[in-house]
Amino acid sequence: MSQFQPQDPDFEQRGREGFARQTVMATIGASIARVAPGEVDVALPYRADLAQQNGYLHAGIVTAIVDTACGFAAYSLMPPGYAVLTVEYKVNFLAPAQGTRFLARGRVVKPGRTLTVCAGEVVALDDDGSERMVATMLATMMGLRGRVSSEQ
Amino acid sequence: MSQFQPQDPDFEQRGREGFARQTVMATIGASIARVAPGEVDVALPYRADLAQQNGYLHAGIVTAIVDTACGFAAYSLMPPGYAVLTVEYKVNFLAPAQGTRFLARGRVVKPGRTLTVCAGEVVALDDDGSERMVATMLATMMGLRGRVSSEQ
Amino acid sequence: MSQFQPQDPDFEQRGREGFARQTVMATIGASIARVAPGEVDVALPYRADLAQQNGYLHAGIVTAIVDTACGFAAYSLMPPGYAVLTVEYKVNFLAPAQGTRFLARGRVVKPGRTLTVCAGEVVALDDDGSERMVATMLATMMGLRGRVSSEQ
Amino acid sequence: MSQFQPQDPDFEQRGREGFARQTVMATIGASIARVAPGEVDVALPYRADLAQQNGYLHAGIVTAIVDTACGFAAYSLMPPGYAVLTVEYKVNFLAPAQGTRFLARGRVVKPGRTLTVCAGEVVALDDDGSERMVATMLATMMGLRGRVSSEQ
Repeated sequence: MSQFQPQDPDFEQRGREGFARQTVMATIGASIARVAPGEVDVALPYRADLAQQNGYLHAGIVTAIVDTACGFAAYSLMPPGYAVLTVEYKVNFLAPAQGTRFLARGRVVKPGRTLTVCAGEVVALDDDGSERMVATMLATMMGLRGRVSSEQ
Repeated sequence: MSQFQPQDPDFEQRGREGFARQTVMATIGASIARVAPGEVDVALPYRADLAQQNGYLHAGIVTAIVDTACGFAAYSLMPPGYAVLTVEYKVNFLAPAQGTRFLARGRVVKPGRTLTVCAGEVVALDDDGSERMVATMLATMMGLRGRVSSEQ
Repeated sequence: MSQFQPQDPDFEQRGREGFARQTVMATIGASIARVAPGEVDVALPYRADLAQQNGYLHAGIVTAIVDTACGFAAYSLMPPGYAVLTVEYKVNFLAPAQGTRFLARGRVVKPGRTLTVCAGEVVALDDDGSERMVATMLATMMGLRGRVSSEQ
Repeated sequence: MSQFQPQDPDFEQRGREGFARQTVMATIGASIARVAPGEVDVALPYRADLAQQNGYLHAGIVTAIVDTACGFAAYSLMPPGYAVLTVEYKVNFLAPAQGTRFLARGRVVKPGRTLTVCAGEVVALDDDGSERMVATMLATMMGLRGRVSSEQ
């Protein structure tokens, strides 16, 4: 159970629609695995054409799915009519991103009027169901009333 | 002119070969634009299938090209027989990633025996040649003798 | 109960001695509140001479206690004869650091041969016992065999 | 010459007054060395009571002076009637903070309506005038109209 109350009862549909407009998610094969108030999971099967030089999932792709998970986690707590923007993030890579499937979990740590702080993690899943944390993120998201402006 | 002396005279060829093994770079259409000791630039034309919900280049793709630029900038100063690994990075997004082409510049700030600190930036280029900074990165890279091990 | 096994049975004494050598901790009035394998808490009573312009605890002091908590959390899992060094950290400030007392909690997320990743948080405590999170940290620590060298 | 135009002609006096209200700066012995639009330097002589376990300046104190330098650099470009708040920062430590004197340089990278991104560095100075970079910061500052509220 989430600790947060959404301000928009349609937060889940709004989040899934926003995700569907992120064309890069379809390009890399990512999908939303779960939406709850302040919590979004994004799943990505491994693909050999998304790798770095050792065949592991590239850090940028690991980052893309956990940024999206954190962004929509923040978005789920915003009122209708808001857009969400990534202000900044930091990611630590804990182990090679090796697995058959990856799950990025984005969680709101502290919602705010303007800024929302999120924590994210990416786990690699093997066929035997074992799970290994490969990255951890700390991110700042910004809510903007109306459409995204050209400046913060 | 770079301020650094490479330890491997073949640093450029080695870097270009490493880049060619990063399959995700071909998948998104990125290429190396420049290699110098401690400095690597990566170019990426805009593609509508790499976007976030507003049609701008997704933060994860912005991050992917500047991570690769910083990683190979660090790699260019490492001795032969080393591999490079991203330990962590932080990225600030300064303006929407809107443009016809993007250039990620990775620069070594401080090389070290084990860890190399890099700074990176991504600029958006328009057809009229104007340039706008869209992201800035501060990253820690690690040199590993031999092939990449399964743990740091 | 901690999830980690210390490699040095004297980890607690070693950590407390290291803390005692950090002169800045005595200068600001900080003390170790708890040591467990991979977990260290540092306590700091509020002092008006450690404030920023609004009278809240200065971000640098908030950072100092959580850096120390994370550093000694990492150190607690290192073998005898190692020193610990802060490679880098990121801190998000979630609320004004206002309270009668502050507690910084440092936790190891992923120990490693060379690098240890830690997560930290600082909470403000009021006289009525209520607790409010004011900062969250993600940090990379490095273990060095022997004394701290002049370079990473 | 700074590349920025201040919105408040009294930006320097306002910054120096704000600095004077940061009690921790007097406690550690720091002073403003320079103020220009978007640029603030803070100086700190070494003191043995501000050290970590090896006698180097503690990372938290290094961070305190560069946070203050970046915060007031951002503040110098804000209109009258605004307060500045640190949203978050990341610091990489490049070399032991060993020297007779330290200089923290804060620079605005990108000013914004709400958020200002700054870059900072701390150099250690020896008696012979040599300078060595010991830390680099990337920070997000927030401008708030009126006094600092209890929430972001």
